[in-house]
Amino acid sequence: MPDDSEITLSPPERALHERYGTLMGPPAAWNDVLAALLAHRSVRSYLPDALDPGTLELLVAAAQSAATSSNLQVWSVIAIEDPARRERLAQLAGNQRHIAEAPLFLVWLADLSRAQRMADRAAAPLEALPYTESFVMGVVDAALASQNAAVAAESLGLGIVYIGGMRNHPQAVAAELGLPPQVVAVFGMCVGKPNPSVVTDVKPRLPQCVVLHHEQYSIAREAEGIAAYDASLTRFQQKQEMRPVGWSGSILSRLKGPGSLSGRHVLREVLARMGFPLA
Amino acid sequence: MPDDSEITLSPPERALHERYGTLMGPPAAWNDVLAALLAHRSVRSYLPDALDPGTLELLVAAAQSAATSSNLQVWSVIAIEDPARRERLAQLAGNQRHIAEAPLFLVWLADLSRAQRMADRAAAPLEALPYTESFVMGVVDAALASQNAAVAAESLGLGIVYIGGMRNHPQAVAAELGLPPQVVAVFGMCVGKPNPSVVTDVKPRLPQCVVLHHEQYSIAREAEGIAAYDASLTRFQQKQEMRPVGWSGSILSRLKGPGSLSGRHVLREVLARMGFPLA
Repeated sequence: MPDDSEITLSPPERALHERYGTLMGPPAAWNDVLAALLAHRSVRSYLPDALDPGTLELLVAAAQSAATSSNLQVWSVIAIEDPARRERLAQLAGNQRHIAEAPLFLVWLADLSRAQRMADRAAAPLEALPYTESFVMGVVDAALASQNAAVAAESLGLGIVYIGGMRNHPQAVAAELGLPPQVVAVFGMCVGKPNPSVVTDVKPRLPQCVVLHHEQYSIAREAEGIAAYDASLTRFQQKQEMRPVGWSGSILSRLKGPGSLSGRHVLREVLARMGFPLA
Repeated sequence: MPDDSEITLSPPERALHERYGTLMGPPAAWNDVLAALLAHRSVRSYLPDALDPGTLELLVAAAQSAATSSNLQVWSVIAIEDPARRERLAQLAGNQRHIAEAPLFLVWLADLSRAQRMADRAAAPLEALPYTESFVMGVVDAALASQNAAVAAESLGLGIVYIGGMRNHPQAVAAELGLPPQVVAVFGMCVGKPNPSVVTDVKPRLPQCVVLHHEQYSIAREAEGIAAYDASLTRFQQKQEMRPVGWSGSILSRLKGPGSLSGRHVLREVLARMGFPLA
């Protein structure tokens, strides 16, 4: 069997090969949008260059173009350029240096407070906000919006990385950002020009047979798919000079217990204090 | 002041104009990806035509290319093509006919069960799953993946619409789809060829001054922005021959009380029964 690297692949075949760490047939269709989506990789080293004027507004226009539950738009975003504030947020996220390094840090918020203020101004009853459903709508709205912004940023040659570490200390993040009650940072996102001296690669994902089900949920091909993925992720880690632990080991270690959640095991009670009782 | 329709706009200016319902300057940059993102509109009328072979796999490859928290990939998707199952799911979502009509219905799942099975097979402890944080990771993972699939589908000339109604009866949906515990449908998505005889328009969103904050959360321009939006959404509704209620009224009505949540006010206790105690 020839080594993968000896085979000449078309750009779409190459994109699928990198995404799955294994050779696949040519896709059914291809275009610039698919190429952009498939090429995503997280960037954790940035040039200090400021973004071109108007870039932020384009990213937000893309974000606002995503679907939103019943057009409620229960999300907001804070754009942070101030280096001192980025430094403090980097600390709150477990000292992630790329937050201090990238020129723009976006914090994506589930925001029920706007609806609350509208009701207050109209002296209208608004009793749906304390429910878990409303929190879920805010989280989903923020996530759909942010993903559009991520795709937009990458289409402009910028790099991004999501920062779940905004949930390590949600109340301290809220204080730093002046958030009112009923607003919480769901995650952050670094945006900037990738440092060209640091090579980033597309990280392979699980085979489709593990995540894609037909008609009903099925685990028929799960064990086989995960075994193949452990092997391909180990190859990727070796190439990256990372510890070759595969995937299963890292999942079990990340979810071992409340202590492996970077302090986020208290999220429920912190959310309650922030105006999300999750009734 | 000239009527908006009398002004000749470039394609990017036209896209921004439709997205915000108001004239804006030309964007700082433009490309096919941004054009695709800005052009999103929900499609609720489809041709019965099956999708081209390989389309589903391309959408899933796009979905898997989205970021996922710590590469945990705590999501799955079920592709439903069986008309009888789509009919039953349409009923469960409050009789939304487009679910029965579109050839493909995707149900996006927060899926912690895979990690549970891996731990069971390895006889390893896995105690982080009951926490709210793990549920949030699953919801965010599913949302980021789905949005990439939505963008991919639209790039192929297909239409989509998100279906939050999968949360109206989560346990009945789980039974229909054979979901194990620790898996829940976050939302669905219809995918198909838009019915060309039904015109859909881009729905205007809130002005950026309402959702985009700089450095810290600010409501300085909120009331003014919402008033402008109420006016532009009213114009849109009139053009669409919908009831011209603006935005504020519909928000207050949708979030009035638990009874306005389409049965989802019980989501928290239903989630607990499905293996998400939200500890």
